Amino acid sequence: MSNDILQQLAAVLESRKQAQPDSSYVASLHAKGLNKILEKVGEESTEVILAAKDAERSGELGELIGETADLWFHSLVMLSHLGSSHEAVLDELARRFGLSGLEEKASRSKG
Amino acid sequence: MSNDILQQLAAVLESRKQAQPDSSYVASLHAKGLNKILEKVGEESTEVILAAKDAERSGELGELIGETADLWFHSLVMLSHLGSSHEAVLDELARRFGLSGLEEKASRSKG
Amino acid sequence: MSNDILQQLAAVLESRKQAQPDSSYVASLHAKGLNKILEKVGEESTEVILAAKDAERSGELGELIGETADLWFHSLVMLSHLGSSHEAVLDELARRFGLSGLEEKASRSKG
Amino acid sequence: MSNDILQQLAAVLESRKQAQPDSSYVASLHAKGLNKILEKVGEESTEVILAAKDAERSGELGELIGETADLWFHSLVMLSHLGSSHEAVLDELARRFGLSGLEEKASRSKG
Repeated sequence: MSNDILQQLAAVLESRKQAQPDSSYVASLHAKGLNKILEKVGEESTEVILAAKDAERSGELGELIGETADLWFHSLVMLSHLGSSHEAVLDELARRFGLSGLEEKASRSKG
Repeated sequence: MSNDILQQLAAVLESRKQAQPDSSYVASLHAKGLNKILEKVGEESTEVILAAKDAERSGELGELIGETADLWFHSLVMLSHLGSSHEAVLDELARRFGLSGLEEKASRSKG
Repeated sequence: MSNDILQQLAAVLESRKQAQPDSSYVASLHAKGLNKILEKVGEESTEVILAAKDAERSGELGELIGETADLWFHSLVMLSHLGSSHEAVLDELARRFGLSGLEEKASRSKG
Repeated sequence: MSNDILQQLAAVLESRKQAQPDSSYVASLHAKGLNKILEKVGEESTEVILAAKDAERSGELGELIGETADLWFHSLVMLSHLGSSHEAVLDELARRFGLSGLEEKASRSKG
């Protein structure tokens, strides 16, 4: 199910990549270029760190969840901008941890 | 399928959270505490940014994929350390983009 | 001479700390609080890294100088916000490298 | 006086730039190249942010001073690696804030 969310989100990001920059935040990021996208990755990383420190004290997780969503979102835009996607990252994680995603895919592609 | 990978990875991370710190990298991060985990999030964010700049020039994506995997991995450890998980982040992304993950879950829980 | 610049800049920052938030950028940062100041430190750090990568290729140093000035400036505001200053940082660097700043100060304070 | 410290430190950094990489940390950074130096800038930036959050709670400033010294030190190594120095950054700050450093230098050079 979470897979479905990343898959659906990637499809949304690809469709907005082609949109007019003034009609879509994603399109405007692509139009501004890689440095702008990476500035956002850096900003959101800092905001995740601050939210985590605050969450440790307060026990409130909402801000942390929102900032982590921002970080993952902008890293997906970065991958899309450079011609990659979440699938390559998840495959790498599956490979490192011996998870079954790669195998499933391999067996599926063998049909 | 990618969902399965995140779900499986989260299960691995939870099981290692309970392991002896000297037998598991994940357990050692939890033992060192939140600051150590956040230092890793910050480090990996910088390495993602450097790898993206290099990928733009070279067209080689391997380093970028590996560093993004590191960033997501350490953000999963952070979420686990603070009592949350990837599900809350994916739900937030689904909510923002009107994706069907939340609804499926809701209908399933009513099921 | 560079010393004079940091000393003068610190004096400017202290005077603006007391100003009305809507009349001074420095005062507005203090009014927004530590998280806002640290977000700026994180942002400027990312911009320094991007500018350094671009400077390596282009040989143009102007952007890098400007972003490093932004980073140092916001770290001075951070030190001021928490009740410290550039002097403590420079003393620490002098101590580590066996430089004469500390000794001069010590002998001066002995009159 | 703080000026003297930055000036002396810059001289130390330039002399170590020429040293054998296995005899000097600064030389080893230059030998490893710009990405390694920028990874350190990113790491130290994160550690400054964490130390500032902790200092806000504890009132203890020692860690923050040490991490800020690390950040400034590695940004000086970065400037040196790319053929610039602290003087260009301080001149930029003087220019922005209307401080007298630049004028002094200008009048001195007319000397």
